[in-house]
Amino acid sequence: MTAARNIRIAILGLGTVGFGVYELLKRQEGELEAKTGLRVEVAKILVRNIAKPREGVDNTLLTDCFEEIAEDASIDMIVEVMGGIEPARTYITKALKAGKNVVTANKDLMATHGGELLHLAQEMGKDLLFEASVAGGIPIISPLKQCLAGNHITEVVGIVNGTTNYILTKMAAEGMEFSDALHMATELGYAEVDPTADIEGYDAGRKLAILASIAFHSPVAFRDVHTEGITKITAADIHYAQEIGCVIKLLAIARETDGRIEASVQPMLLSKNHPLASVDDVFNAVFVHGDAVDDAMFYGRGAGRFPTASACLGDIIDCMRNIHFQCTGRISCTCYRNLPVKSMSETLQRYFLRLQVLDKPGVLAAISSVMGRHGVSIKQLVQNPTDNASYAELVLITDTVREADFRHALDLFLQMEQIREVSSLIRVYE
Amino acid sequence: MTAARNIRIAILGLGTVGFGVYELLKRQEGELEAKTGLRVEVAKILVRNIAKPREGVDNTLLTDCFEEIAEDASIDMIVEVMGGIEPARTYITKALKAGKNVVTANKDLMATHGGELLHLAQEMGKDLLFEASVAGGIPIISPLKQCLAGNHITEVVGIVNGTTNYILTKMAAEGMEFSDALHMATELGYAEVDPTADIEGYDAGRKLAILASIAFHSPVAFRDVHTEGITKITAADIHYAQEIGCVIKLLAIARETDGRIEASVQPMLLSKNHPLASVDDVFNAVFVHGDAVDDAMFYGRGAGRFPTASACLGDIIDCMRNIHFQCTGRISCTCYRNLPVKSMSETLQRYFLRLQVLDKPGVLAAISSVMGRHGVSIKQLVQNPTDNASYAELVLITDTVREADFRHALDLFLQMEQIREVSSLIRVYE
Repeated sequence: MTAARNIRIAILGLGTVGFGVYELLKRQEGELEAKTGLRVEVAKILVRNIAKPREGVDNTLLTDCFEEIAEDASIDMIVEVMGGIEPARTYITKALKAGKNVVTANKDLMATHGGELLHLAQEMGKDLLFEASVAGGIPIISPLKQCLAGNHITEVVGIVNGTTNYILTKMAAEGMEFSDALHMATELGYAEVDPTADIEGYDAGRKLAILASIAFHSPVAFRDVHTEGITKITAADIHYAQEIGCVIKLLAIARETDGRIEASVQPMLLSKNHPLASVDDVFNAVFVHGDAVDDAMFYGRGAGRFPTASACLGDIIDCMRNIHFQCTGRISCTCYRNLPVKSMSETLQRYFLRLQVLDKPGVLAAISSVMGRHGVSIKQLVQNPTDNASYAELVLITDTVREADFRHALDLFLQMEQIREVSSLIRVYE
Repeated sequence: MTAARNIRIAILGLGTVGFGVYELLKRQEGELEAKTGLRVEVAKILVRNIAKPREGVDNTLLTDCFEEIAEDASIDMIVEVMGGIEPARTYITKALKAGKNVVTANKDLMATHGGELLHLAQEMGKDLLFEASVAGGIPIISPLKQCLAGNHITEVVGIVNGTTNYILTKMAAEGMEFSDALHMATELGYAEVDPTADIEGYDAGRKLAILASIAFHSPVAFRDVHTEGITKITAADIHYAQEIGCVIKLLAIARETDGRIEASVQPMLLSKNHPLASVDDVFNAVFVHGDAVDDAMFYGRGAGRFPTASACLGDIIDCMRNIHFQCTGRISCTCYRNLPVKSMSETLQRYFLRLQVLDKPGVLAAISSVMGRHGVSIKQLVQNPTDNASYAELVLITDTVREADFRHALDLFLQMEQIREVSSLIRVYE
């Protein structure tokens, strides 16, 4: 047997994840040949500033010129861990066209241009692998594309943003308000200086677009995902949720019903008995329902240097095996359908509502009647006194109702003089 | 483009799982070509009695002669879902030698002869896939072999037997004793007429041997696994466990410490905060710790017609893609190390002990002194009165101790006149 050839890898980006990939490749150096039949070598690392000293890294590998990588025919694979749409999109496109395989952790890019890039990879017969783009270290893309491929998946529900899950966990455990919990998350480095993408659900929405496309074999883009954040959730909401056996989680939900897809991210009440309910702190989990497997869940760390690098390494090893067996491009774009995406108003939902109402006889009857006329049944109702003797608080949960019908009833509600305000309005997962 | 060629499959066995595989192949018929580039056709089904009418199955496919399948060169793949060592081992060997790929759900076989069969498959350049052999529908073997392949896995802990998990869940939820819960499980069809393999931990032990071999890249056979069952667990044990914030679960644990492997199955006290603690009823889960991914868990249905068939279908699709890309045998035996297996007496453990002792001053001191002399520290201790005024019940939890040292202390214990009996002795997971 001849000596195994070296697979030459270029890492694009040397931030948190990039350094993790570099480190793990070193750690695994002795075993990668046994695992894949090939040896691996980091050929180049693309950074913005090559003058910046980087401890623990062979500085001769650094370059600030992508063309050096693209034009080096001896480089088999690039690992893109820069993030953001550009220049990542251009670099990946050029690398694929130059006949290189690609591993990426880039959710923004895959959620917006995944289809076009996967088709290019397919055309070139190369791998474009992106396990790290969703839920960090948790294996979910490969299990969906392979292990669960014999299923008709009908639902994917994920807690796929660690920052918001940490905030909601703190709020629940310590009765904190949102702003205090966010402050704590920022201090601990769990939330970014500008936390918008996390707390408004955009980050989760991008991951959901990727998951839904794979689960339903039909392209779902980020713009197809309805997103709502957690900024309006209060300690009181969480308290009421607990009283009825629920937690509040930011859920990314995609469903296929009657040949159409629904995809949304929003805070939801979730029964404490659901496996996702005990996913706390910065942990992530993805729950899947398929016609054969029934319920399955994948749990782990959704972010962080080594968990994310673990997913990249898995893809690197997958690609090395494909190179060894001359079968790169073996699993490419798995979208062979083109299902329409439902608007949110067409979806069926249940709602948790907290209302401040005039504390007078007949208020309940008036509210029930408006709801009833619009097909909204009330499933559970609690009335609490408030500090102000003229007002009472109503907490109610509706039965399943079409979102459009509910919104119409709500508009009428807000015109009723008996209703002072709608304090919260949160969907209920079922 | 020419029409896709048909992959011809023979199913060996038409029991619960075999029928599930047949059904799922029919359900997926329209989509398998889009998923794999190839069409699929069930060519033969091996059964014991071809005269027995089978509803919903094309009876012309039935045969009771394996040679018909082995000698039919047009058959690309066999799906072995008969179970048991023989004749499955002979059939799989013959099929591989005849150049066929193999998908199997057979844990007994893979736990005892997995190595030899995988080496044969490798030699022949064919696939031998066995995702369904562990934890039913839950993707775990493929994630370990691929997605997590960039890790040094140091621990695998599973709840991998649905029958015992159902029994323990019932005992905990309803205060039932073991025999009543077993009776209930039998009535519901969750326990077999002879439940020995489940309740004594043998079934879980076979699955653990397979998981450990893959996780640590080193062969672990069923005979290497120390197994203890749940027959001695009482409602009182579960009650005491709950009082200290624990549940009792039958855990299959494999660890790599200082270059050696430990592998055991036993009922254990587990903190309620551990993700495995909320895995209830017949559900299974496998918890994995790796140096990069940190903690990850895979949850789902560990048995049943369609969940198990889901795992088989995933393997069939994997193999079809390999056939399409001419890379069968792409992932074969992943054991490239040969680590020794520790005996149980060398492992470090913590123990939960329930003792009936003479209710006299000095008893505690005497017990602590025997323990202390053998390096056993007591971490937690509660003394309860009993119905008999002369005796008290001691419930204690030890600190971490080498099993051999603890056993030695225990032997001395049993000779002490102050000790009436050791009512329970259960290890504590940490």
